[in-house]
Amino acid sequence: MQKKIVIVGGVAAGASAAARMRRMDEHAKIVMLERGDFISFANCGLPYYIGGVIAQRDSLFVQTPAAMKKRFALDIRTKNEVIAIDASAKTITIYDHNLGILYTEFYDYLLLCNGASPIIPELSGIDKQNVFLVRNIPDTDAIKEYVLRSSSQTAVIIGGGLIGLEMAEMIRHIGLNVHIVEASSQVLPPLDQEMAAYVHKELRNQGIDLHLQDKADSLLYDNDFVTHVQLASGKSISADLVILGIGVKPNSSIAREAGLRIGNLGGIEVDEFLRTSDPSIFAAGDVIQVKNLISGSDALFPLAGPANRQGWIAANNIVGPKMISYKGVQGTSIVKVFDQTAATTGLNEKTLKAMGIPYQAIHVHPNSSASYYPGAAQMTIKILFDPEDGRLLGAQIIGARGVDKRIDVFAAALRLKQNVFDIQEFELAYAPPYSSAKDPVNLAAYAAGNVVTKQVDLIHWDSISSYIDNNDAILIDARTAREYSLGSVPGAINIPVDELRSRYEELPKDKDLLVYCQVGLRSYIACRILSQLGFKVKNISGGYNLYTVINQY
Amino acid sequence: MQKKIVIVGGVAAGASAAARMRRMDEHAKIVMLERGDFISFANCGLPYYIGGVIAQRDSLFVQTPAAMKKRFALDIRTKNEVIAIDASAKTITIYDHNLGILYTEFYDYLLLCNGASPIIPELSGIDKQNVFLVRNIPDTDAIKEYVLRSSSQTAVIIGGGLIGLEMAEMIRHIGLNVHIVEASSQVLPPLDQEMAAYVHKELRNQGIDLHLQDKADSLLYDNDFVTHVQLASGKSISADLVILGIGVKPNSSIAREAGLRIGNLGGIEVDEFLRTSDPSIFAAGDVIQVKNLISGSDALFPLAGPANRQGWIAANNIVGPKMISYKGVQGTSIVKVFDQTAATTGLNEKTLKAMGIPYQAIHVHPNSSASYYPGAAQMTIKILFDPEDGRLLGAQIIGARGVDKRIDVFAAALRLKQNVFDIQEFELAYAPPYSSAKDPVNLAAYAAGNVVTKQVDLIHWDSISSYIDNNDAILIDARTAREYSLGSVPGAINIPVDELRSRYEELPKDKDLLVYCQVGLRSYIACRILSQLGFKVKNISGGYNLYTVINQY
Repeated sequence: MQKKIVIVGGVAAGASAAARMRRMDEHAKIVMLERGDFISFANCGLPYYIGGVIAQRDSLFVQTPAAMKKRFALDIRTKNEVIAIDASAKTITIYDHNLGILYTEFYDYLLLCNGASPIIPELSGIDKQNVFLVRNIPDTDAIKEYVLRSSSQTAVIIGGGLIGLEMAEMIRHIGLNVHIVEASSQVLPPLDQEMAAYVHKELRNQGIDLHLQDKADSLLYDNDFVTHVQLASGKSISADLVILGIGVKPNSSIAREAGLRIGNLGGIEVDEFLRTSDPSIFAAGDVIQVKNLISGSDALFPLAGPANRQGWIAANNIVGPKMISYKGVQGTSIVKVFDQTAATTGLNEKTLKAMGIPYQAIHVHPNSSASYYPGAAQMTIKILFDPEDGRLLGAQIIGARGVDKRIDVFAAALRLKQNVFDIQEFELAYAPPYSSAKDPVNLAAYAAGNVVTKQVDLIHWDSISSYIDNNDAILIDARTAREYSLGSVPGAINIPVDELRSRYEELPKDKDLLVYCQVGLRSYIACRILSQLGFKVKNISGGYNLYTVINQY
Repeated sequence: MQKKIVIVGGVAAGASAAARMRRMDEHAKIVMLERGDFISFANCGLPYYIGGVIAQRDSLFVQTPAAMKKRFALDIRTKNEVIAIDASAKTITIYDHNLGILYTEFYDYLLLCNGASPIIPELSGIDKQNVFLVRNIPDTDAIKEYVLRSSSQTAVIIGGGLIGLEMAEMIRHIGLNVHIVEASSQVLPPLDQEMAAYVHKELRNQGIDLHLQDKADSLLYDNDFVTHVQLASGKSISADLVILGIGVKPNSSIAREAGLRIGNLGGIEVDEFLRTSDPSIFAAGDVIQVKNLISGSDALFPLAGPANRQGWIAANNIVGPKMISYKGVQGTSIVKVFDQTAATTGLNEKTLKAMGIPYQAIHVHPNSSASYYPGAAQMTIKILFDPEDGRLLGAQIIGARGVDKRIDVFAAALRLKQNVFDIQEFELAYAPPYSSAKDPVNLAAYAAGNVVTKQVDLIHWDSISSYIDNNDAILIDARTAREYSLGSVPGAINIPVDELRSRYEELPKDKDLLVYCQVGLRSYIACRILSQLGFKVKNISGGYNLYTVINQY
């Protein structure tokens, strides 16, 4: 029996599903409907084409409809928009924008891959000609054309998420002044505040005007063009163009109207096989609501990797013979921010705190490769783990080199429910151009392991001052006298770690000692010496490195 | 009770152990004996210092004896060589090269980290002044001084292993002509022959004279200097210097003489806690024999990462309280070869074949980052896996960028006994500068999964010609007519994949069809089409890309 399968949406999940279906079933009738002009385009490459880093517009087209049709024998219909589903009749109503007609199509199986749409704030002026989204090829063409044609000098980007930061870099790369307006106290919500501070540092060092805890209150305009963005703080920014990067929401309204179950976050609800509440309708990609793999909570993760995987799984489950389950999204993401890379996987501290999940965190600052090999760059790694058994809960990394590698190893470990002791054992590839004999991933796991086994007690910068006030604790800087003289934490006394064995008698045994150094290693050694000598001592996670970044950015 | 622990050797395992011991036990007496002048130096950095990539000699010293002594309160004795162990008396005899005296030291625990020594072939002339090893700082100084001082033009490197290739690159970097003489048919023994071919290609493209399946038969000399290396093949190479990189053997003779159990490969035998046959003596690093984590066989793996880990574990097990086990080495290694990186983890095909372990292999050629993002470079990945359940057995990768990242993810997966279906699910970090929505690791796992689930039947280049002869099979090139015209495999007929659905009737159903394309993807699609149409068909792993490299290098 020839199955007729209709796929709604032809970008990431949809294109991936169509190709897999054909490879699995040479005989099925496969119709792909795409409301836009283009299928399977490089969504994630759009900012880089705008910035000129990707020179050729053609590079954005992973597949053209003609080529994909030929290769996979698909019935591809662009500018064909599904406007209604009749699940009981197994039909859909389609509006063909080419011909301006409505028509009906029958399906045996329907696969909804119709993605998500940018959130557009309700502001007067938002519909003006120099306010842009970065969603598809026409948006991209419009920005590029506008920037080239006009004598634009200043861009305001509303939203400091992934797209907002990529666009900030690219627009700056073209030579414009760039403002980012972000309502919360930090960019990149998957990062914790102190890790985001490293991103703030990079943005500001690269000349970006970053407006945190502020929002666009109104857009002032002159005829068809916005001229100023008025912020809630009272600031007014002169703007030649405005780019919206606030986030996206699932395009689930057609599914909702068809009576399919919609999740509490607005995405289509699917079971582990990516089947909706109607057994003939599957859904994949940004339009669905998924389970967070670590917490089990409902989540929206509009990311290309999971979308492709989901498309592939839905295809298998529709054409058979074997059903494959989708276990959930862990939220691995990465972004280039000028010369830095920020990456994350799993749960962050904010989420763990909000959910009441017990956790501990460590920060380390290892080098990307052997410290003596040219190009080695220091990165900052934060990992979160169960304080009892050390199970990894999440990782965040920022640095100039080698960040992508380490987040991928943590991502694999996290998926496989590894604890920090397991991760210590990972035998990773070492030669001086690539790593150290203890890779940064191992190093972070060693640091965390020492916390789980209670060889060291940690304290974090955000609780230091209240802790000192409440416990009459002493703050010790374990770096050299020279380092200390170049800048230290107010109130800290200096006892270099190498002098500790001859000077510990200066210290009181009845007070808590809080020790820091530059990155946390010497202070850890100091803690081990002091605790074995009978002192009450805590190591300050992340050291002076983290302290200065938090306080300045 | 204060324990007295004597550590023999102060480089990787020894230094790592000493630091960990002190952190765990502030009160132990820890003596570190090192027969050379230096401790904790950057062994793996030596070639890069010789080549001038690492500019400062001081960078090679991770720790000086003075600094380490201060930091960790150690009794460090350089130029102190252990010459005998009396295990029953718990004493060692030491020769102090500084004073020229012998003395005896008692221990509660002895930790042997005395490493491995280069294998020196028995050739006349091997002791001449311009024949060098690359083992330690004095060797390094000697090579560097000789190359700078003399008007050397040609170096001959004997041995194509890790050190041999690193030295070849560095000596070439200085401007000399470089010959590599390697007895087997390939460099880098952990790679399989066809993967090594990519390394041969890079070496030859970079102007290295590579002499495979050949060996130095004799060294011709003039007074104190070798002038020519005479090869078994009859070739004679004029040589201004000769560098030996044949491999190393464990320095286990003292342990053997003390009656400790020595393994069949010549390394000290240890239990899972790194304890030798004497319960007061532990051993770690290059001197021990370990278990291969994947095969369970005995193995020697003189690698810095495992050595550091073993030192750390031995330290924990000596000072307590908890014993930690060492599970084995998987053999993850990586080497920079000019503009390419070659990396490997786990078992290779040669070993699997020799051990009679069932396996299947795939080759894929994905890009390091999104293909449209500048700098994307194609790599070649080979993975080996169980043909029944898909369990990963090993991975080999070569390419210009992003190789280190992918081998680390495979290394983690391999350690955790993952199968290729698990690896398909890995949610790795994707943004265009770093990867594709399907990372190369995922892609390799998808390709392997299709073999395990029998969606495609593979055949490898090394068995094509005999297969065609025996089975009267037909060879099909599924690339475009243009690609075919630029070069194809003799005897192949050209049917582009996109024409297959209209041309399959040209093909016989009673013969086997062997299909290739450039990298293996289009031929896989062709196989899916043909097999569903009732043809007997096999995909040729690695495609024309692999074919040309195997045949040229």
